[in-house]
Amino acid sequence: MKGSMSLKSLFYPKSIAIIGASSREKTVGNDIVKNLVYQGYKGKIIPINPKIEELYGKKVFSDINLVDTTIDLAVVAIPAKFVPENLEQAAKKGAKAAIVISAGFKEIGNIELESQLKKVCEKNKISLVGPNCLGAINPEIKMNASFGQLMPELGSVAFMSQSGALCTAVLDYAKELGVGFSKFISIGNKADVNEIKLIKYLAEDDQTKVILIYAEELTNAPEFIELMKKINRGSNPKPVIVLKSGRTEAGAGAIASHTGSLAGGDTAYNALFKQAGIIRASSIKELFDLAQIFALNPLKKAKNLAIITNAGGPGVLTTDEATDNGLEMAKLSEDTTKKLKEFLPPAASSHNPVDVLGDARADRYKFALELIATDKNVDSIQVIMTPQSMTEIEETARVIIDARKHISKPIVVSMMGATTVRPGVDLLREEKVATASFPEPGAKALAQLDKFVSWHNTPLEKSMKFTDVDKEKVKRIFSEARKKGQTSFPEAEAMEIIKAYNFPVLQSEIAKSADQALEISKKFGSKLAMKIVSPDILHKSDVGGVMLNVTSEDIQKKYKQMIKTVSKNKPEAKLEGVLLMEMAPDNGTEVILGVNRAPGLGTMIMFGLGGIYVEVLKDVNFAYAPLTKSDSLDMISTLKTSDLFKGVRGEKAKDIEMLSECIGRLSQLVTDFPEIVELDINPLLALPKGEGAKVLDVRVVIEK
Amino acid sequence: MKGSMSLKSLFYPKSIAIIGASSREKTVGNDIVKNLVYQGYKGKIIPINPKIEELYGKKVFSDINLVDTTIDLAVVAIPAKFVPENLEQAAKKGAKAAIVISAGFKEIGNIELESQLKKVCEKNKISLVGPNCLGAINPEIKMNASFGQLMPELGSVAFMSQSGALCTAVLDYAKELGVGFSKFISIGNKADVNEIKLIKYLAEDDQTKVILIYAEELTNAPEFIELMKKINRGSNPKPVIVLKSGRTEAGAGAIASHTGSLAGGDTAYNALFKQAGIIRASSIKELFDLAQIFALNPLKKAKNLAIITNAGGPGVLTTDEATDNGLEMAKLSEDTTKKLKEFLPPAASSHNPVDVLGDARADRYKFALELIATDKNVDSIQVIMTPQSMTEIEETARVIIDARKHISKPIVVSMMGATTVRPGVDLLREEKVATASFPEPGAKALAQLDKFVSWHNTPLEKSMKFTDVDKEKVKRIFSEARKKGQTSFPEAEAMEIIKAYNFPVLQSEIAKSADQALEISKKFGSKLAMKIVSPDILHKSDVGGVMLNVTSEDIQKKYKQMIKTVSKNKPEAKLEGVLLMEMAPDNGTEVILGVNRAPGLGTMIMFGLGGIYVEVLKDVNFAYAPLTKSDSLDMISTLKTSDLFKGVRGEKAKDIEMLSECIGRLSQLVTDFPEIVELDINPLLALPKGEGAKVLDVRVVIEK
Repeated sequence: MKGSMSLKSLFYPKSIAIIGASSREKTVGNDIVKNLVYQGYKGKIIPINPKIEELYGKKVFSDINLVDTTIDLAVVAIPAKFVPENLEQAAKKGAKAAIVISAGFKEIGNIELESQLKKVCEKNKISLVGPNCLGAINPEIKMNASFGQLMPELGSVAFMSQSGALCTAVLDYAKELGVGFSKFISIGNKADVNEIKLIKYLAEDDQTKVILIYAEELTNAPEFIELMKKINRGSNPKPVIVLKSGRTEAGAGAIASHTGSLAGGDTAYNALFKQAGIIRASSIKELFDLAQIFALNPLKKAKNLAIITNAGGPGVLTTDEATDNGLEMAKLSEDTTKKLKEFLPPAASSHNPVDVLGDARADRYKFALELIATDKNVDSIQVIMTPQSMTEIEETARVIIDARKHISKPIVVSMMGATTVRPGVDLLREEKVATASFPEPGAKALAQLDKFVSWHNTPLEKSMKFTDVDKEKVKRIFSEARKKGQTSFPEAEAMEIIKAYNFPVLQSEIAKSADQALEISKKFGSKLAMKIVSPDILHKSDVGGVMLNVTSEDIQKKYKQMIKTVSKNKPEAKLEGVLLMEMAPDNGTEVILGVNRAPGLGTMIMFGLGGIYVEVLKDVNFAYAPLTKSDSLDMISTLKTSDLFKGVRGEKAKDIEMLSECIGRLSQLVTDFPEIVELDINPLLALPKGEGAKVLDVRVVIEK
Repeated sequence: MKGSMSLKSLFYPKSIAIIGASSREKTVGNDIVKNLVYQGYKGKIIPINPKIEELYGKKVFSDINLVDTTIDLAVVAIPAKFVPENLEQAAKKGAKAAIVISAGFKEIGNIELESQLKKVCEKNKISLVGPNCLGAINPEIKMNASFGQLMPELGSVAFMSQSGALCTAVLDYAKELGVGFSKFISIGNKADVNEIKLIKYLAEDDQTKVILIYAEELTNAPEFIELMKKINRGSNPKPVIVLKSGRTEAGAGAIASHTGSLAGGDTAYNALFKQAGIIRASSIKELFDLAQIFALNPLKKAKNLAIITNAGGPGVLTTDEATDNGLEMAKLSEDTTKKLKEFLPPAASSHNPVDVLGDARADRYKFALELIATDKNVDSIQVIMTPQSMTEIEETARVIIDARKHISKPIVVSMMGATTVRPGVDLLREEKVATASFPEPGAKALAQLDKFVSWHNTPLEKSMKFTDVDKEKVKRIFSEARKKGQTSFPEAEAMEIIKAYNFPVLQSEIAKSADQALEISKKFGSKLAMKIVSPDILHKSDVGGVMLNVTSEDIQKKYKQMIKTVSKNKPEAKLEGVLLMEMAPDNGTEVILGVNRAPGLGTMIMFGLGGIYVEVLKDVNFAYAPLTKSDSLDMISTLKTSDLFKGVRGEKAKDIEMLSECIGRLSQLVTDFPEIVELDINPLLALPKGEGAKVLDVRVVIEK
């Protein structure tokens, strides 16, 4: 993939120059050199500083230009304003990647300097990390090119963070929580290397199994979604777990539409994560829980969970958490139940959760675990142990470790407690068995694993595309409008746009005679509204020029009657005919279908219940265009009020096929015309199954 | 309070007999003696076992009858069937409390034996803990009368658990998480001592500041609610935090009503916790988080939170969690902001969250903390620290400890990480400063503290009571029904019950003449329905005996017309007059008001949106009768669709006063008549403000 080559110099450099190396302890320029020298990096370490000659046994160069070897990676910790020129020099020495630790760029409003820095890197084909970051660590080659103090254990979790200070805490937590890293990188201002570039690289990094991200802001949702689909529907999926902060910042980058309040920043992110199959962690702790369960388990279905526990209470709590998060309690086979009954004491529970009782020694765990693992009704297993005086903590750990070796189902072990159970937990971690100190988060993480796997197993689907659309016509409408400086399209004009994309609208046609009116009414096949057509009449109803609910049967009579009445009331008016319009059916449910722009992320389609309930229930869903058919159906079925569409209390189900089609047509329209910034079909009348839907009103706004 | 005296023997016994003491290691009977002897209990230890003479240096008695001193507390670990007779003997030796460890009672269906045990204890005025439990620990006197292995640190948290095995894990976690206990008790089958009895005792226990409960089942919601109100609206509140398992067990003890599915077991518990002001923990980990934050902080308002952090990311994450859980970010005073700006480096944030930057040493924390603590806009403070190389971990801890001594606002400290920050965390814990290893749970716990305090500060309120009700009439209706074996009351009869409690119903009256009809119609003041009254006419509309939407103006004419038409159509029928009924107004919103019984807990009032939305949105609230006016208003305002009642999109607000009154009348009715098992006013028509409400349909079912 593009960019992979240069990121190789970032993670596997043969030589590293530290521009701004310092002899003063507890400074960034000192920490980095110390970390590289003492934490085991085997490549060439080239400190640069005009004032010193040696640092931690390494020769210090006074000037980059004097460096006598090739520089692979430049780590920069000098005042911001000097960074661009220094990178120019580093480039001359061969630098293909740079980590700019220095702050003082975009984050303090210094946008000009950051774009200058970016240009230097682009020109010289340098992959730039930062500026304003902590650095990068590759435990595989013991490279700590950061001012974080700890070298994490090597593992299969890649971590990237937009917050540098969070990194130091994460490094510290990780040791305690048993998470090892493949790559660890602080991406700061993301002037160049961002989440998408890193994911592309990590997708092909053999050491990485799971990708963790702490993000405050992401961009380009459609690219993100496409990338994740490509990676995770393939043969080598890499789950991405994101901790996204700022979820409550109301109105951050609010979307300009009258339902804007519904689409706060977080709604836009949730839509992105859902479509991309990204798992969202709700807290730092959960990020670790998920990392461990994903990294140390096969990416396999976990839906039907079996729990083995020596304590009833924790078994119930775990059942709660598991089922609350979408897992089901496995129904053990008769054979399993029978064998459990034979082996376990009478007071034990041989149903799921399987209670091996408080006095269980390792043998009971072994028997239950090995047996349940072979049960076809069981997809995943959680083992729970509380420390009673007779509990064999280490022996039980060993039993589980042995089982883990040949069981290919996801397993999580919760040895509950701290000091007492620690020897068991340590054994499990050494042998790469997933543990969760508290059982509930373990179950929740298993549920997330299952969601990921089921997403991974869903076949790739193309975006909806309709061939019966008149793209040229819309192009014309927009281009003519632009000429006039028009950006807003009220109902009548907006309806033309909608019609060009073949949305179901109320039919209308002008009749010039009573016979023609009959013909049209037969074609429309429903009750009609009649409106006189005349350039000379402003208030049609005042002169008898409006009639409602006209049927085919009496349309000829009514036509003649209208012409007669209007002629009498307004003899001077030129009558051009009568406009016949379908009446809106009265058996529909109002929904809203629209477009919202999430700044930086993309254009979202919005669908939800209309009328008074939009405001009261805020029951709308969002998804980024372009959409697949499944996306569109999901937007309908995951509404809180989705039962209304399925039909409740004897009401007929709505025409979900047509609603899906409308969503698809809108997706195609905004994909074809990214200049559409607002579009609201409100209401779209959802009719009973087989009867379609009708656009009753629409407005469109395009970019200036 | 009642029961306090005998529980004193449970927690502060001068002598303890262990009936079933054993010399075999890793058995319950051995563990208990060992724990008592070696963990520092200073009272008399009296092991009983016919087969041994000495155990851990204590003389063993072969028979209780041979014990030569008074027994205060008997701990029993012998086969179930021998327990009652042994307790009889212990009673003779003075036992006032007993802990029955032995299993084999109700939990395996042995209800008879358990009730026998209960009787022996009642007769002998013994407070009984268990059976089927782990025992009890009082760290204050180093008494470990349990087979849990660890003596917890002395603290101010009382813990009671329905799961014995969970206790051992909790003891182990507690050491690690820095929670100390005042009392620790496993209550097993709760044959006698249950949560309510213990809370009554602990309310007067000086050592206890916070009460933690792990519960699988609770009983008697009204008593629980009354007790908690008494304790927590008084001068010495004791927060109760409950971890209730089984929240997903659909239909457990389902409530018999057509909306029964809405009131699963968990709904009933949530209603109890809310009314009682009990804090519900959602996981074992949260139980600890809450315990620590409540135990180590003043019970004071925490609403406006200030965050001091050296890392931006965690500051944002904590802001998310805090505001998501109901806290607000304090708006720092101008003076505070000004002083922060003066002291902190330019890149620091002097707005909340206050970012003292990654290179902050202890002095910046000290300045910010002391300053912010004096800001009147700040109610509570969370200090967050990530370990950078220049971070002064221990010194920062000391600064916070000093500040804690004179700051009377709630404070939580999150030193993020593990090993690196441990020295700081240990210092904080030693000095009883509340810590949260991860910052988000700390903020969430502070939010719970604030909720508790605001509940504690809400004045006690009496249950709603209306004097204009005819209790005698309902009594008569029920007693007559019972005579006939009738338990179910269809609309007409149920309406009489409802009318007796003065619910707003549609008026109806029989007119015997056209003039009288006019008089009645003027009195009702709205459109009327007319129905012929005749014992001989079954299908009134078939003979022209029903007219709708009749106004005062034409009622005389319509009256005459109806009499004439019916007479013609059915000349043989005896006409007794015409029933005039108010028409249901068409400007109402249908709500549902009913009654649900939660087995073991009590009778709940149910209120919610009616019609199709009951099913689709399940938007109903529950609360136990009797209700206060605030309870009733809360039931309306916390609906998801509550905005509908406040008036949206130009619609008028509903008559919330009348809805509250209806809830109150129902509360009074079911309190007066606990035999009501089902009652549904569906729909109750909520009218615009000032126009009241109307009962349109009702049904009632009483107990057999």
